[in-house]
Amino acid sequence: MTNKQWQLAQRPIGAPDESTWKMVESDLPELKEGQLLIKVLYVSLDPAMRGWLNDAKSYIEPVQIGAVMRAGTVGKVISSKHDKFQEGDFVCGYQGVQEYAVSDGSMLHKVDANLAPLSYYLGVLGMPGMTGYFGLLKTGEPKEGETVVVSGAAGAVGGLVGQIARIKGCRVVGIAGGKEKCDFLVNELGFDAAVDYKSENVKKALKVACPKGVDVFFDNVGGDILDDVLTQINMKARIVICGAISQYNNTTPVKGPSNYLSLLVNRARMEGIVVFDNVSEYPSAMKDIAGWIQSGEMKVKDHIIEGIETFPNTLMMLFKGENFGKLVLKVGDAE
Amino acid sequence: MTNKQWQLAQRPIGAPDESTWKMVESDLPELKEGQLLIKVLYVSLDPAMRGWLNDAKSYIEPVQIGAVMRAGTVGKVISSKHDKFQEGDFVCGYQGVQEYAVSDGSMLHKVDANLAPLSYYLGVLGMPGMTGYFGLLKTGEPKEGETVVVSGAAGAVGGLVGQIARIKGCRVVGIAGGKEKCDFLVNELGFDAAVDYKSENVKKALKVACPKGVDVFFDNVGGDILDDVLTQINMKARIVICGAISQYNNTTPVKGPSNYLSLLVNRARMEGIVVFDNVSEYPSAMKDIAGWIQSGEMKVKDHIIEGIETFPNTLMMLFKGENFGKLVLKVGDAE
Repeated sequence: MTNKQWQLAQRPIGAPDESTWKMVESDLPELKEGQLLIKVLYVSLDPAMRGWLNDAKSYIEPVQIGAVMRAGTVGKVISSKHDKFQEGDFVCGYQGVQEYAVSDGSMLHKVDANLAPLSYYLGVLGMPGMTGYFGLLKTGEPKEGETVVVSGAAGAVGGLVGQIARIKGCRVVGIAGGKEKCDFLVNELGFDAAVDYKSENVKKALKVACPKGVDVFFDNVGGDILDDVLTQINMKARIVICGAISQYNNTTPVKGPSNYLSLLVNRARMEGIVVFDNVSEYPSAMKDIAGWIQSGEMKVKDHIIEGIETFPNTLMMLFKGENFGKLVLKVGDAE
Repeated sequence: MTNKQWQLAQRPIGAPDESTWKMVESDLPELKEGQLLIKVLYVSLDPAMRGWLNDAKSYIEPVQIGAVMRAGTVGKVISSKHDKFQEGDFVCGYQGVQEYAVSDGSMLHKVDANLAPLSYYLGVLGMPGMTGYFGLLKTGEPKEGETVVVSGAAGAVGGLVGQIARIKGCRVVGIAGGKEKCDFLVNELGFDAAVDYKSENVKKALKVACPKGVDVFFDNVGGDILDDVLTQINMKARIVICGAISQYNNTTPVKGPSNYLSLLVNRARMEGIVVFDNVSEYPSAMKDIAGWIQSGEMKVKDHIIEGIETFPNTLMMLFKGENFGKLVLKVGDAE
């Protein structure tokens, strides 16, 4: 049995390209006591992965050159010499961009395939879900009747954030690229308004969409959009810095927010978040989110691309704004 | 009796210059019932005044063209038809850059010339003092043993912030321009270290001065210094945005902090402050500060320039980094 795996060949300068990755085929090793073999079914593709390629101090170690590319995964246990996992279990972990993975069970947890489609465990019930849930509620602290703006609103985190804000009684405005995504936000996810950054003047459109100003901004994008929102914030506004996808492939320095002195004028705050800080509270968040999905209050949109071979190009969809919902790479079948 | 007054002639683009101001001489009007006449003794010169010249939404109305330039002042009542103020009272308010002012008593409070030198009421016991006290303690939230860095450290706000942080048991590092100022911070104000941004690589010097990283940064300066400090912050650091004097005279857009994603990596926050939010708590702050001065724990350095005629050039000392301590314009004598 052979395993295909995408390794980091060299660190990209700017956007990752063909030279960044190397596909390696190898035989699978024999399982030792305490190990299990996972067939990877779904690989999570997330903007944060770009940061993991840089050799820089961050909230997590960079991926080493020659190592399998780190990624969240859902898989199926196909053989086990581990006490806690059995053949047939579905498991969620960080098995990386490969077809099969040997695990010692660390950073691995079982998931229930009957409770939700498996891909959800990489999205609303996974890292993006936890990021949005805690980032919005604990750092954004939205109050009923306030206006919440979210960028990257048609992405995995953004769609969830906007829907939670709606459920909490806020006016919700999403920023996304293209009419199709904007229509989806308003018509399917129940956002109050959407701004199409590709065809609209964001600052002017926000003024119309947020007649009472912006109380919470959940930012996945950075760059000009962050600057535009900063011109519209209210007193004591909270800006949650979740990411800055517009800046990740820069070959020039990151564009800092020119309008940051709006924080001073408005006694506002800008605060960064990292999902891992809330691990102990994941279960209660997952319970909330699963409940909202079950009641129909929350809708989920996955964007699934098939084939491990497509990984380099599929990953780039995130940075081109081509994904519509949570981007997932399907690399295997459960049967 | 004539009054010399500096009026705003036109809004500056970039640094204010001769064309920004107009000196006007006029006769003083007769006092009406409920009014009093103040002889201005000291005029406060503060970086924030640059912002008041811009025709932009901010935390306070811009100064109108043709109006006397707004400024904090200490003066002496020389005649009064007002119930609450009498001839001989010393008063603090916003009489602006002029020799005499008629007031109806609003935004005016008496100060005690025996308790402290009158100029202190524009510095440590005035707006800069309140700014530093509340900005550091309420927004910076320094804890004993943490490292606090302050920029513009030899200025009115910075010197006070650093000393309060020291009193609260923090390691204190000041950033200032020139050896004389840096020596003063360490030798006179009891800072643990000082970084001379004019002759040192700020990032490298901070690494040495802050071996345990930066927990609180109180920023008066913005620009490259903010970016350099952002590379050194600790988890859950607090950055207090008090001002950005390096950017106030820009003719190009404000330089936003390129390294703002350090907020994300470190789950840190950046928050703006405006002194006026704490008016009701000024008395207790003034009591603390006066106590520290009396006990010798806090030292005060005023930089007093004489002569109302010098106002345009004296104001510019702030933006050239030429003031050393709280900059005050002396425009009259008490006797």
